[in-house]
Amino acid sequence: MRWWGWGDPGHGPILTGAALDFLNGEVGVAPDPRPPVALANVSLAASALDEGTLEALRAVVGSEAVRSDHAARVFHAGGKGYPDLVRMRAGEPEGAPDAVLLPSDREHVQRLLAACERSSLAVVPFGGGTSVVGGLAPLRGGHRGVVALEMQRMGRVLGIDRASLTVTVEAGARAAAVEAHLAQRGLTLGHFPQSFEYVSLGGCAATRSAGQASSGYGSIEKMVAGLRLCAPSGEIELPAYPASAAGPSMRQILVGSEGILGVITELSLRVRPAPRERCYEGVFFESFAAGIEALRALAQEHARPEIARLSNEQETRVSLALAAAGGGVKARAGEAYLRARGYGEGCLAILGYEGEPAEVHSRRRRAHALVRHLGALRVGRSPGEAWARSRYEAPYLRDELLTHGVMVETLETATQWSNLKALHDSVERAISETLAAWRTPGLVMCHVSHLYDTGASLYFTFLARQHDEQAIAQWRAVKEAASAAIVHGGGTITHHHAVGRDHAPWMVDEVGTSGRAALQSLKATLDPAGIMNPGKLIA
Amino acid sequence: MRWWGWGDPGHGPILTGAALDFLNGEVGVAPDPRPPVALANVSLAASALDEGTLEALRAVVGSEAVRSDHAARVFHAGGKGYPDLVRMRAGEPEGAPDAVLLPSDREHVQRLLAACERSSLAVVPFGGGTSVVGGLAPLRGGHRGVVALEMQRMGRVLGIDRASLTVTVEAGARAAAVEAHLAQRGLTLGHFPQSFEYVSLGGCAATRSAGQASSGYGSIEKMVAGLRLCAPSGEIELPAYPASAAGPSMRQILVGSEGILGVITELSLRVRPAPRERCYEGVFFESFAAGIEALRALAQEHARPEIARLSNEQETRVSLALAAAGGGVKARAGEAYLRARGYGEGCLAILGYEGEPAEVHSRRRRAHALVRHLGALRVGRSPGEAWARSRYEAPYLRDELLTHGVMVETLETATQWSNLKALHDSVERAISETLAAWRTPGLVMCHVSHLYDTGASLYFTFLARQHDEQAIAQWRAVKEAASAAIVHGGGTITHHHAVGRDHAPWMVDEVGTSGRAALQSLKATLDPAGIMNPGKLIA
Repeated sequence: MRWWGWGDPGHGPILTGAALDFLNGEVGVAPDPRPPVALANVSLAASALDEGTLEALRAVVGSEAVRSDHAARVFHAGGKGYPDLVRMRAGEPEGAPDAVLLPSDREHVQRLLAACERSSLAVVPFGGGTSVVGGLAPLRGGHRGVVALEMQRMGRVLGIDRASLTVTVEAGARAAAVEAHLAQRGLTLGHFPQSFEYVSLGGCAATRSAGQASSGYGSIEKMVAGLRLCAPSGEIELPAYPASAAGPSMRQILVGSEGILGVITELSLRVRPAPRERCYEGVFFESFAAGIEALRALAQEHARPEIARLSNEQETRVSLALAAAGGGVKARAGEAYLRARGYGEGCLAILGYEGEPAEVHSRRRRAHALVRHLGALRVGRSPGEAWARSRYEAPYLRDELLTHGVMVETLETATQWSNLKALHDSVERAISETLAAWRTPGLVMCHVSHLYDTGASLYFTFLARQHDEQAIAQWRAVKEAASAAIVHGGGTITHHHAVGRDHAPWMVDEVGTSGRAALQSLKATLDPAGIMNPGKLIA
Repeated sequence: MRWWGWGDPGHGPILTGAALDFLNGEVGVAPDPRPPVALANVSLAASALDEGTLEALRAVVGSEAVRSDHAARVFHAGGKGYPDLVRMRAGEPEGAPDAVLLPSDREHVQRLLAACERSSLAVVPFGGGTSVVGGLAPLRGGHRGVVALEMQRMGRVLGIDRASLTVTVEAGARAAAVEAHLAQRGLTLGHFPQSFEYVSLGGCAATRSAGQASSGYGSIEKMVAGLRLCAPSGEIELPAYPASAAGPSMRQILVGSEGILGVITELSLRVRPAPRERCYEGVFFESFAAGIEALRALAQEHARPEIARLSNEQETRVSLALAAAGGGVKARAGEAYLRARGYGEGCLAILGYEGEPAEVHSRRRRAHALVRHLGALRVGRSPGEAWARSRYEAPYLRDELLTHGVMVETLETATQWSNLKALHDSVERAISETLAAWRTPGLVMCHVSHLYDTGASLYFTFLARQHDEQAIAQWRAVKEAASAAIVHGGGTITHHHAVGRDHAPWMVDEVGTSGRAALQSLKATLDPAGIMNPGKLIA
């Protein structure tokens, strides 16, 4: 992974000249590219750890598993949120871990936590490094120093229970590696967040991740059957029971705990037979409201696709324009066809069905009847296949846009079906008005995805000309306006990005002062010295 | 509800002479019936509350909402577990609330908790009064007295959100009343625990109840979208979001909290369209193991029924014998038919499908193909309909058996599919051996129900001659042996009966010492004076 941005350093550019021209017309781009600084020019304070402290850590995991070189510290200096990228590209991260620790097993983790507690070191558990909400910020929280607990050596698949359809993995296992392991055995986890190429499953569980196919396979909270957590106060081991009525759900306390209670070290996850049939297709609706009604019907009437995403008018328009700018003739012909059929201002939905052929066939047949009844136009598989090809591309594109001085950020929420359109409108307005007030009018796009019986998520993407001097303040203003609109509009502050540092101010809106006090008491019990990931979630 | 047992006082007897003869042959019955004592002869200590304390409570809710008469205190002296019934029938409950409080709204509840905290009174939230695990035991926990917080006046349906398919109710609302309200509007909650006729929905949420149709509709934890809880430290209000990634799940902390953190006062619950088709049918398997394989296939291969229960050989034999003893010719003819087809020693499963006719039809077709492939014999709808007719009868029968000196108790667990048969065998053995050691050899029956992707529950029912002098000690010995077999055999200590007082000793096996400490810290924060339902869950 690039230290200054997303993904494989060998990944080629995506943005065509025509696409850049389009964006220049929409929001404006910088006259000259702004590449990131060189790694050597990233400025870090010297590590705060003295030789005695380093020796104590080396005594636990061995000397090659305690790193404090420049590259390791820079790489672990944050996640991949917009402010992380802005700062890192400029060579000015807010700080970095004083050391990076690489445990190989649970015993290492437990002993490292004890050593860090003794030495007053804050601990940031580090999985795939993909947090977009400041969940990896190397904050000391009043301690003498801070270390990153890099989980990459704890990536083993420990076993598969075929009868019970579960896989047990170490928490550092990457989603992509586990998916490949399962695929060889005819199974799938079905967890495909946009960060799929890098994300660790422990990180997914710690952040309540939901994948692109969560409408069908469920979010990670539905998949976690059992887990182990190393907390400074001791280990909690929860077997992979299918269900239990034994009090508050300890599983659902540890899932979503974002490293503030301890380190998830092991997971037992529900798997499914790998789908033998996959069909991703495009459907056009005359309006966003009509599309929402259709998705609701699919979710509630036994026709739910594994993948569902309905773009609003703006996102549809921009997607088609960028496709035309990239792909040329075919996309433009498609646009003309839609206009001719009266869907020129409409909304595109991608519906993806996966499973056994006969079951997929009957579910799709029900779905087609439902959407036809609601005025939809099916436009075949090519939009679905185009989406599938580029499903993990957005973070690469974001880096390229940053090079061209374009701010791009995403945020998300979820609410009941009855409130979805109203919440969409008010959040869209809050983002647009704030960007306009900064004299950087934006492109605000949204899609509905992650369908439930009772509601769905809204996922906003917005682009604007990056403010030249105050890029972080500009971002913060929009984030605050959007978050206020979300909590006052009846949405959760986060559907799947997690809380981290960025959403922590709104946790009191989410669970109230008593609820926050309850979470604080959990932390005080499991992490009495307060070393675990300070400044996140309930800071 | 009868104060000494279950149900409507007008409900007639179920046990026929032939059935009693059968049971006499199997486990022995008492020579003479042993009816409960008269209500007036139940011995209670005088209420510990002085006039000043009663006045303070009356000032909150009005004088008719503070009861301390004999009948009210007796009725709230416990739940409907086996030891509760044994003690109550003998007129010797372990204690009773000093008063029964009847709040009418959330503000009442919050102010009553404050008044109880000031007066050092423990508070036992009381919904339908159906706990079978000692969850309602009027324990003082070191306080000056104890009151029951009777929720019956908080039973309103507050609203239905048709688009989002949720209903919002006060927590004292009875499942049966809400189901009737929904039925008039073409909806169903789908929550049908055996206690359905009496249970409150707040009680269901507080105890992680699972209904008989949970394989299809999910257990209550899947239904709770939003809730409000009055804790002594303040109120927690959680809106009905479809999902959230905002930290540990506060919903799943309060669901299952069994009154130890506060009082659930309001719930928003997912509902479904009322099924237009219901089909409950019987299927015979050659063995319990074959039946388990079939249920696993149904659960994992898109053919899961709403209701599934597979009786083991013993439960099948006893059910058929009791049906023959009650119903005569038809049941005996059925038995002869099964023997002729080679299923004489087999296992009966009831599979119940509900929903839209076309969808039910296609799911049943898949189910029939799967079970046929696994050697099952379909025996038509009459066993399913017989089960449906008597689905809430077991607690009535239990009272009649107690009158005849027969101990009858149930307990349950859940585990992974790969472990289900082994856990069944070890728990069955533990119960049988303990009963034999007490020289009261028993009938130990079991069924698999509540299907999940990764496993299912085991529900044990056992009958034995009640020990004449030491009925409670006899019961406790079996309970301890079965619980030890469950936790050592890889099962959860409770799948849907909850923890209460009876399972509290095994919570440390369930969540570990760190997990239990975490739960204790939640309680210390939300209920700092420790007045809420002391002695339960994490005692």
